[in-house]
Formats: sequence, C-alpha cells, structure tokens
Amino acid sequence: MGRVFVDISTSLDGYVAGPEQSLQDPLGKGGEDLHRWAFAARAWREAHGFEGGEASVDSDVIEETIARTGATIMGRRMFSGGAGPWADDPKANGWWGDEPPIGHPVFVLTHHDREPLVLGATTFTFVAEGIEAALEQARAAAGEKDVQVAGGAAAVQQYVAAGVVDHLHLHVSPVLLGGGVRLLENLGADPSQLEQVGVLAGSGVAHLHYRVVR
Amino acid sequence: MGRVFVDISTSLDGYVAGPEQSLQDPLGKGGEDLHRWAFAARAWREAHGFEGGEASVDSDVIEETIARTGATIMGRRMFSGGAGPWADDPKANGWWGDEPPIGHPVFVLTHHDREPLVLGATTFTFVAEGIEAALEQARAAAGEKDVQVAGGAAAVQQYVAAGVVDHLHLHVSPVLLGGGVRLLENLGADPSQLEQVGVLAGSGVAHLHYRVVR
Repeated sequence: MGRVFVDISTSLDGYVAGPEQSLQDPLGKGGEDLHRWAFAARAWREAHGFEGGEASVDSDVIEETIARTGATIMGRRMFSGGAGPWADDPKANGWWGDEPPIGHPVFVLTHHDREPLVLGATTFTFVAEGIEAALEQARAAAGEKDVQVAGGAAAVQQYVAAGVVDHLHLHVSPVLLGGGVRLLENLGADPSQLEQVGVLAGSGVAHLHYRVVR
Repeated sequence: MGRVFVDISTSLDGYVAGPEQSLQDPLGKGGEDLHRWAFAARAWREAHGFEGGEASVDSDVIEETIARTGATIMGRRMFSGGAGPWADDPKANGWWGDEPPIGHPVFVLTHHDREPLVLGATTFTFVAEGIEAALEQARAAAGEKDVQVAGGAAAVQQYVAAGVVDHLHLHVSPVLLGGGVRLLENLGADPSQLEQVGVLAGSGVAHLHYRVVR
C-alpha cells in the first residue's frame, strides 16, 4: 500500500494563502508568490502544457512528486478555486479547465453529493462521507502509488490530526504574508513527532521533507 | 559598519518557545527540543565549556555566527531566563552563571535602569531607552563586526518592524509545538521582501538564511 503525503507551498511565516482571500483572489494577497518557484520549473510547465522552464532542483522535486502520486485528495475550495457561492455549483468545473494538469484520480472533500466530473484524463470524485472515506477511495485508486493531500490547509490539518499522514513536503517561499490561511495549526492535541528526511535548496524556495513518526 | 542579523531556533510551526512558558520553564513545553541540534554541535559545546560534540554542518553554522558577532542584543526575558518577578532584580544574573559563553558585549532591552553587569568576559549593558538606542550602542561596540539580535520573539519583531534587520537566520527544528511564542508575526504593516540566501541541511535541523531587501 502506498503512503499518504502532504505536498504544499507555504510562506516563511506559515501561510498557504494570503490575507483577503476571495472568489476573485483565492490565494489571497501575495499568495501567488508562494508558487513562483513552481511556475519557473520545467516539470511544472510541461505538466501544464507550457514550453520552457528550468531543469532545476525544483523541477526534479516536482517530477518526483508527479511520479509517486497515484491519487490526489483536495478540499472543496481548492477544487473550485475559491470560496464563492459557485463552489457547490454542480455544473462548475472549478478553475481546472478542460484538461487539468493532473492525469490521475482526484477526490474532492465536500458536503454535497455530486456526480463524478471527468475532465480530460482526470476524474474528480466528490466525497461527502468524510476524510476517512475519501482516503479509502484514494488509496484504492492509487494502488501501489502514493496518495497526495494537496490542500487546502483545512484538509491537511484534518488528515494530520487523524494520524494518517506519513510524510510532509513543505515548499517554503521567502515571503512574509503577515496573515491569511495558516497551515500548521489545529493538528490535534498530541502532535506527532517528525523526522527530518531532506532539506533541499531550490531557486528561491526551501524544500523541507519530514516523516511523521507514530 | 557591520550588519544586523537575527539568529534564532524555531519549531516547524513557527514557535521559539512552547506552551506554558514560566519561570521554571522559560522555553515552555517542548521548547528545549528546538535547541537539540546546537547541543550536539562541537562549536556550541566548546563555547559552553563542554568536551566532544560533532564537527558537523551545524557546528560550522554556529562557528560562523560566533565569528561574525561583535555584539548581541537580547530581550529582558532572554537575559533573565524567564518571565518571573526576579527578572528585574538588580542583583540577579539571569541564567548565565559566572562565565557566560558569549565573550562579547551584550545589550539587554529593559524598562528599568540598571548598572552594567560584568560576568567573566561578557558585559551586559541594560538599555531602557528603546530599541534604537540599544542598536546604536551595539553597533558602536561591534565595530566592523555584526550585531546579532538573539531573541526573544518580541525583540526580533520590533527590530524587523523597525526595518533595521539585514539578515534572518532561522534554524528550523522538526518539531510541532502546537502553541507558545510565535516568531514571525507583528512584523509591521509593510513586510519587507526577503531573498533566500542559503538553505542548509543540518542534523535534524534546517538552516534557512534570508536577506531582507529594502
């Protein structure tokens, strides 16, 4: 059975989205800066259908993550690209377009039943029965590969608190957002021990990799 | 003129001291874990009069910091080792003993005038005239060398907010404290840009080095 890992970009002060998050600005003020390291990497550009990019440490990190991931779990807002009223619109495709750059099954945590959505090579399955049910389905879909918890913060927090996350991959950007959505809080009363597995210097980002010791 | 740098150990969730901080437990619950990386390093042990330790990346980092520092600024609680009633006792030596492992001038931010305290090769000067006055004195004492802002969080925050910090050195331990004293908040309305200068993998710690771009 594969592992469950969190993979997410944060600011140095621990936010995954900046202040004044809205439908028009789902990453909040300054939040896009957290992802600049990825935009410049060849592997990210390739996955998103763009030319160019650098064959860098960052690109290797992304490539490795793509290769190991058999299924992705995300929160409803991350799917819909915002917290607006259309987040639960059964016809909305979120911000993913017709060919999301994912290519493996995605399980979306939601409170509302909805038929699976097939966009190109990616099927979004909506799970209203809670995080355990979503993980079970994701594990089955991933087979030998790993399950990625991609965000947002609430999804990450719930899975860490439930004690089912094996690895944390944080990509820390040299950015101070000063407010917004914090990642590492609400992690349960008895936080797990972490073991530092890897620290890599990217181009304007620090890749920190931890194993959760249970 | 030397530079002003912050050098401090934090948890992965951004705390420099854990919950339930008290006179008896100035680092709070779990807070000592933030400093384990240093305890194991040869340069730290040497400075504190202990034998042994590893000649590691961590030891090199500490050695470099010792070499560049001409003066240190710290908050009153960091000096006294706690927030207790004796923090302002003019006869108290804090937790530094007779031979503090510092060996250069220290400037302690306080609200109460007090005569300088000479302990071995280290003189503690108490500055009640504010952070600018303390920095001015520290710069003069440091000469060509750098001024280290060693903590606690409030001192770091005030100097960053004042726009006088040139470099941030964070030593991030693989620890989730879940509460306590947070470092990177109250940094002013207009947070400065950071440039990632170095990312080093230590033994159970990530050394993150940033330049503040003004």
